[in-house]
Amino acid sequence: MTPDRRAVLAGTGALAAAGPVRAAPPPAVTRILARYLVGARTGDIPAKVRREGCRTLLNYVGVAVGGSRHETVTRALAALTPFSGKPEAAILGRRERLDILNASLINGISSHIFDYDDTHLKTIIHPAGPVVSAALALAQHKKASGADFLHACLLGIESECRIGNALWPSHYDMGWHITGSCGVLGSAAACGKLLGLNEQQMIWALGIAASQPVGLKVQFGSMTKSFHPGRAAQNGLTAAVLAAQGFTADETALEGKDGFAQAVARSVKWAEVTEGLGTRFEAALNTYKPFACGIVTHPAIDAAIQLRNENRLKPGDIASVELIANPLVLSLTGKTEPRTGLEGKFSIYHCIAVGLIHGAAGERQFQDAVVRDPAVVALRRKVMVHPDPKVGAAQCTLVVKLRRGRSLTRRIEHAIGSLEKPMSDAALEAKFTDLAEGILTKDLARRVMDMCWSIEKASDAGALAEAARA
Amino acid sequence: MTPDRRAVLAGTGALAAAGPVRAAPPPAVTRILARYLVGARTGDIPAKVRREGCRTLLNYVGVAVGGSRHETVTRALAALTPFSGKPEAAILGRRERLDILNASLINGISSHIFDYDDTHLKTIIHPAGPVVSAALALAQHKKASGADFLHACLLGIESECRIGNALWPSHYDMGWHITGSCGVLGSAAACGKLLGLNEQQMIWALGIAASQPVGLKVQFGSMTKSFHPGRAAQNGLTAAVLAAQGFTADETALEGKDGFAQAVARSVKWAEVTEGLGTRFEAALNTYKPFACGIVTHPAIDAAIQLRNENRLKPGDIASVELIANPLVLSLTGKTEPRTGLEGKFSIYHCIAVGLIHGAAGERQFQDAVVRDPAVVALRRKVMVHPDPKVGAAQCTLVVKLRRGRSLTRRIEHAIGSLEKPMSDAALEAKFTDLAEGILTKDLARRVMDMCWSIEKASDAGALAEAARA
Repeated sequence: MTPDRRAVLAGTGALAAAGPVRAAPPPAVTRILARYLVGARTGDIPAKVRREGCRTLLNYVGVAVGGSRHETVTRALAALTPFSGKPEAAILGRRERLDILNASLINGISSHIFDYDDTHLKTIIHPAGPVVSAALALAQHKKASGADFLHACLLGIESECRIGNALWPSHYDMGWHITGSCGVLGSAAACGKLLGLNEQQMIWALGIAASQPVGLKVQFGSMTKSFHPGRAAQNGLTAAVLAAQGFTADETALEGKDGFAQAVARSVKWAEVTEGLGTRFEAALNTYKPFACGIVTHPAIDAAIQLRNENRLKPGDIASVELIANPLVLSLTGKTEPRTGLEGKFSIYHCIAVGLIHGAAGERQFQDAVVRDPAVVALRRKVMVHPDPKVGAAQCTLVVKLRRGRSLTRRIEHAIGSLEKPMSDAALEAKFTDLAEGILTKDLARRVMDMCWSIEKASDAGALAEAARA
Repeated sequence: MTPDRRAVLAGTGALAAAGPVRAAPPPAVTRILARYLVGARTGDIPAKVRREGCRTLLNYVGVAVGGSRHETVTRALAALTPFSGKPEAAILGRRERLDILNASLINGISSHIFDYDDTHLKTIIHPAGPVVSAALALAQHKKASGADFLHACLLGIESECRIGNALWPSHYDMGWHITGSCGVLGSAAACGKLLGLNEQQMIWALGIAASQPVGLKVQFGSMTKSFHPGRAAQNGLTAAVLAAQGFTADETALEGKDGFAQAVARSVKWAEVTEGLGTRFEAALNTYKPFACGIVTHPAIDAAIQLRNENRLKPGDIASVELIANPLVLSLTGKTEPRTGLEGKFSIYHCIAVGLIHGAAGERQFQDAVVRDPAVVALRRKVMVHPDPKVGAAQCTLVVKLRRGRSLTRRIEHAIGSLEKPMSDAALEAKFTDLAEGILTKDLARRVMDMCWSIEKASDAGALAEAARA
């Protein structure tokens, strides 16, 4: 009989830990992380990392506002509004307010609608959705200052990304949508910090969160994909408010026998969580997508936009286009005749065409009408792709042959939006403005962006959420 | 590069299913189950199974009322009441009402406090907590009839137990608290049925639920253990109300690549879910604990109570007691000098003593005062246990030696509460009455039990919840 089975027969499993002693017990990861979170002070985090936090925040608000009118959000609101409590928290980009638990869910959904959110490249976690959605809702309830809010967000992002690093890649390979499954812990950490939990309570918050991982990759392509970061936000917030009231959890929830890591991964590197806390910041490694499609297409789009802008290209100037790229580009985005906006995201031909014509590949360039625009259709049919395994997935060479015989060539080593070539603040603002168009007025969009940049000076972080209501 | 990694690079993972074709694809489990649930009619389920459903309901209400005053519940209420919406649903055993989502959580917590709830022995799932907590809350919102409510509960129990059978034992061995991790699907099935979802919507409800498994065994011994069935109830209910509004999910959430089974189990027997639907009922195999402690102690307690009652034994009559039992009994419950009620549950000596003195081993017999009662202490010190590996874990022989020299012997093949020797309706009522004492008046307890027995005749199932408020 297995120890598990024995514990079951004992009724409460209290003896489950009495099995054979392990040669090398794991470190007290849950406690180490909780202790760091509780002890961290606002000024401890370097200014550069805090600035990255502002960029993360601005990108988050932009994608949440941009996604807020999608029917995914409308349906979720229709389902849950009848059960919502006190309307304390704003739904970004909309008029509604909901209780903070439901608001964290809905804003988390909005933030992921376009798959255009921030990315921690080591784990492919989208850090802000679970963490900022929860912390922003809680900030409205707690009347938290902007400095405390941003600090809590950075600690939450740090937690989820470090845990993701520790579980990668087996956790992801097992089927988990890592943004939701690790995001719940980031949300709990951020909310626990905003609530001022002590070490014991923070351990409980992480423990309650660990019992609620959210999200399976089978849902990619359905509305439930966007549900994942939202529910992770809500679950982490729930865990934190429970812990604040003394709701107990095991102190080894992450590392213990029959705990989180055992259940959701095949191997784990705990040093990724426990080492360098307070000195090495995963939150500084966040990146932002400049284009609303898979990153495998980004080098080619970057090249197309550069050539267009530098040479003031017009569609009529172009005789043909050739892309030399990693074979992955064709196998993942080789759709030659996309018919819908979504299919356009899987067509490197469409991506290059809008880069050359629009000088952009935002959500707007993946609307059905753009995919069917005769000028775009004509240009994409002039694109040829040459797969070359010697070219890295992050690189490409784009050659545009002009009608008058001249050729323009651009080689990309690191596409815009990568860690090596991050989006500028101005580019982030342009992305925000594009996403907010038709939802927030230009003046309001400007004001919301300014609030993001200066969030640490705000006496009331929740004012940001209220301003970003439509 | 793995297919997973490729899907990530594609941005939305829509191509994740385009990997190598499997030799034998799994059956369309999610759809098959959804189709059964949608097509099932109240009268299809045999009267005997429906009667078992009434017994499950009565046991559920009893344990939820009994657990409702525990500080686990009080703390959860303190944390979540500030965010609750319209108070449509009763908290069993208490005065509060909350919105149906929060009420399903709290009642699910209450039902598991004493670890005294129903058990599906093949999987050790406690079926009612996740399913009935959700369906009862929803019934109050929908004004559902008792017949529809009971039918939905039975279908929910059927779903979670069949899925548990399919994943057993690897799912449990990985660390999952199966009551919560499979219960969420039972809750979604029951609530989806009560909401009248069509097949497509039911598939979505199961899919949204599959992304939210709850519960790790590391939490056994903490308040979070009881949180698991409650949160499973709430998650399944959330999934169903979302699906009713057209919130989409993948159609292969249970069986698909990167789906539920892949993430939470190492092997799966899908026939356990898909075969015999409508003819073979796991819900008929539910059992109820007669004693508020681990089942390994139950044969000995059963023997002690039988000898006591048949011979009108008094503590003073007894010279010594000998138990011949499987070695597991001592290794799991060998605590000779328990000091608290909880420790008493891990003391076979205490269990036998209260069986002989009180003729019972309910929650009352595991109060601290009883464990410290000199008469109980004196008797437990007269108990000797002889481990014998030839005796099965479900069997035992108890020998009581009387002061006057005579010996009384009782051999137990199947303890009361087992499938072979189920608790009688009268015993279930006695358990209920004991749990409700001090919370519901005797008259009210009687009325609530009558409502459980006749639930199928009730025009308004929610009246049961309202009656079971304190």
